[in-house]
Amino acid sequence: MAERVTHTLADYVVHAKANALPAAVRKEAARAIVNWAGCAIGGSHHETLDAAIAALAPFSGPGTSSVLGRSERLDPLLAALMNGISSHVFDFDDTHLQTVIHPAGPVASALLAFAEYRPIAGIDFVNAFVLGVEVECRIGMAVFPEHYDVGWHITGTTGVFGAAAAIGKVLGLDVQHMSWALGLAATQPVGLREMFGTMTKSFHPGRSAQNGLAAALLAESGFTSSERAIEAPRGWANVLSVARNYDLITQGLGERYELLANTYKPFACGIVIHPTIDGCIQLRDAEHLTPDRIKTVVLRVHPLVLELTGKKAPQTGLESKFSVYHAAAIALIEGAAGEPQFSDSAVNDPNVIALRERITAEIDPALAADAARIAITLTDGRVLERYVEHAIGSLARPMTDADLDAKFHGLADPILGRAQAQAVLARCWDIERLDNAALLAQAARLEGALRP
Amino acid sequence: MAERVTHTLADYVVHAKANALPAAVRKEAARAIVNWAGCAIGGSHHETLDAAIAALAPFSGPGTSSVLGRSERLDPLLAALMNGISSHVFDFDDTHLQTVIHPAGPVASALLAFAEYRPIAGIDFVNAFVLGVEVECRIGMAVFPEHYDVGWHITGTTGVFGAAAAIGKVLGLDVQHMSWALGLAATQPVGLREMFGTMTKSFHPGRSAQNGLAAALLAESGFTSSERAIEAPRGWANVLSVARNYDLITQGLGERYELLANTYKPFACGIVIHPTIDGCIQLRDAEHLTPDRIKTVVLRVHPLVLELTGKKAPQTGLESKFSVYHAAAIALIEGAAGEPQFSDSAVNDPNVIALRERITAEIDPALAADAARIAITLTDGRVLERYVEHAIGSLARPMTDADLDAKFHGLADPILGRAQAQAVLARCWDIERLDNAALLAQAARLEGALRP
Repeated sequence: MAERVTHTLADYVVHAKANALPAAVRKEAARAIVNWAGCAIGGSHHETLDAAIAALAPFSGPGTSSVLGRSERLDPLLAALMNGISSHVFDFDDTHLQTVIHPAGPVASALLAFAEYRPIAGIDFVNAFVLGVEVECRIGMAVFPEHYDVGWHITGTTGVFGAAAAIGKVLGLDVQHMSWALGLAATQPVGLREMFGTMTKSFHPGRSAQNGLAAALLAESGFTSSERAIEAPRGWANVLSVARNYDLITQGLGERYELLANTYKPFACGIVIHPTIDGCIQLRDAEHLTPDRIKTVVLRVHPLVLELTGKKAPQTGLESKFSVYHAAAIALIEGAAGEPQFSDSAVNDPNVIALRERITAEIDPALAADAARIAITLTDGRVLERYVEHAIGSLARPMTDADLDAKFHGLADPILGRAQAQAVLARCWDIERLDNAALLAQAARLEGALRP
Repeated sequence: MAERVTHTLADYVVHAKANALPAAVRKEAARAIVNWAGCAIGGSHHETLDAAIAALAPFSGPGTSSVLGRSERLDPLLAALMNGISSHVFDFDDTHLQTVIHPAGPVASALLAFAEYRPIAGIDFVNAFVLGVEVECRIGMAVFPEHYDVGWHITGTTGVFGAAAAIGKVLGLDVQHMSWALGLAATQPVGLREMFGTMTKSFHPGRSAQNGLAAALLAESGFTSSERAIEAPRGWANVLSVARNYDLITQGLGERYELLANTYKPFACGIVIHPTIDGCIQLRDAEHLTPDRIKTVVLRVHPLVLELTGKKAPQTGLESKFSVYHAAAIALIEGAAGEPQFSDSAVNDPNVIALRERITAEIDPALAADAARIAITLTDGRVLERYVEHAIGSLARPMTDADLDAKFHGLADPILGRAQAQAVLARCWDIERLDNAALLAQAARLEGALRP
């Protein structure tokens, strides 16, 4: 099956029709767009984006395309970069669990920026988005985990294929030109995991969106490339991975959709802490807990939790995302774990610190990765217990549409204000019925100054 | 020695002074610029560049920077891309033999495009160019041949470091910011060898120039990255190569210069045929040969020659570059082997075909790669023989300045006309004395229509 991988994938993308998309897939596309747009707007005033815009906006072409949540307009290539960066800057974006790809960022960032340059009907946008996600996730599945383990940030390395396929689809490329677009994508992978912990991590989904858009535009203009870029002896899968399974790319195209395996984070931190936070919020809400009533908390967690997030005394907002102790404390105090709960001020709040110091954590190898046990001893001597079998946001217990709405508002309201955020959210849910998907981007522009 | 590789390299680049450059290095920089500019101008109207400009020029920012040999002006990022593409499109650019890197393209394309945006004094341009070449060649040496063998086009993967270092130097970055620039370069490698034979091969040096320029600009704006991008466990050298020798990066900085190991191709085809062409031209000129006097030709060549260039009856100009038979025939007939000698019309010329069919080739394992033996039997029965120990263009017998002048004119005159080409050439040789290196780019613009 190593002979026609690129061709098979290109052929599928070229011929896949929007009206063949199952309703559940179209619905999931809207959910993914809601989540992506919320993250991009929420991250739009992070210092990472300020630095990127300061460096590159002077070289922008005609400013057709919006930077979501900001007032700048850039050419579609740079807007794709910026929206991809901001969508990842809080590590709050979607996750295809099987590959740990964050699929929406590279694809949606390229498509929406391009829709403001050349109109894309909503239903075509949705179809291209679904196909782009399919391409990047399948290519990722073919090389996971070896490709990731060696050190590639898989969102960036596969995202460029997803963006190229999606843009190639809306450009109406034929199979040969689509293959060239995939070839031009293959030759520009983005992202080493070494960059985690720096601004460059967020650069990866943005740059892959930009590179994929450029790849499709070049192919459209007749810029030739390999037509076997994925499977050739010196192609992408052989050069960037020590193992590969091409059947995961070519089998069942149009029968199953990887978008249906996408998940959304309810909490703005590493996914391994989510069961703990979920359990703490459940107990707090059920018992109307206040911190003064809590004597001690014992967490029983999957082994990865202490390996990845065992920091006892975080000093900064970023560090607090790697502290299950901080996360449990803030969840018990505020009943939430969004971006504000992982700020520098939250981590240094004396009330949070005081509760955090009464929390201990133990490994329980019997627990699944999306499970946790919480035991709280109250000052009155009572013990409250909660077992979370599947954390909210997992595939088994996905966020509801209402959860996604609340997450969106938590991210977008501080930037756009409640009313404009509501208007953007409505367009996200309505994406497949928009005459032009660009209407979503236009609704998400910040006109005038940022709200205080 | 794996602990401070990136830091050591960044520290060297930041502190290296132009007035410490040996005269021989400054001279070689001018020779490399002559060769690069000639290639870029000569390739500037190739269909590859037409396609790239058609696709991406609509997204250009303010057009400060020249596409050498053309009338378009683009923003410096896109101009760097285009000049890098055109400099490689004939496969006629320079070669660092130890790594098969084509060093000038990524570095000079970024620097010259940026000089038109922010002036760079000639001597600073030369210093930055030398440092950029040093960085890319040393990083390449550390991972060669494993990195190349697995399938990376090493010019693109290391060129982005070279461009980032050179631009970082002219921006005056400190060691931390220079390290970030190298980190942003590391995370954007360009180029799979699978793309050879398509337009995407030339895309690699261009994109690496563009990516390196963007990396340095981002770092300047405070966009953070890893400060151990080369040597970290999940850094560039570990992820992109199965073997590495960091001493080749860090030892002898400022004491030896890889630019002095750079070579220039006298002939517009694969380097393995060069000894044969050299010998044929020598015999032709010495004996005033005409094809009607030649009965048969026997070539004795290094084994790689027939493996790589054994095509007996090429049909197109591109194929003729892989035919030692065509190359020997055209060299005997025209006394030259530039781009016109490898055109579609040359390969289908009946006189060339007739002579080609009287040429045979035999492998001689005793011959070095830069050697060849030619034996010509004339119609009058005489036998002429020539042994080429080191082909012209090899490190042992480099092209003279006059050879480089002639090569430059062969490439640039058809585009710019003799007079303008002469003016560009003068600025190349004079590069270190220019008040602003941008004067070179401005001289190489095509004003008005292409000459017929």
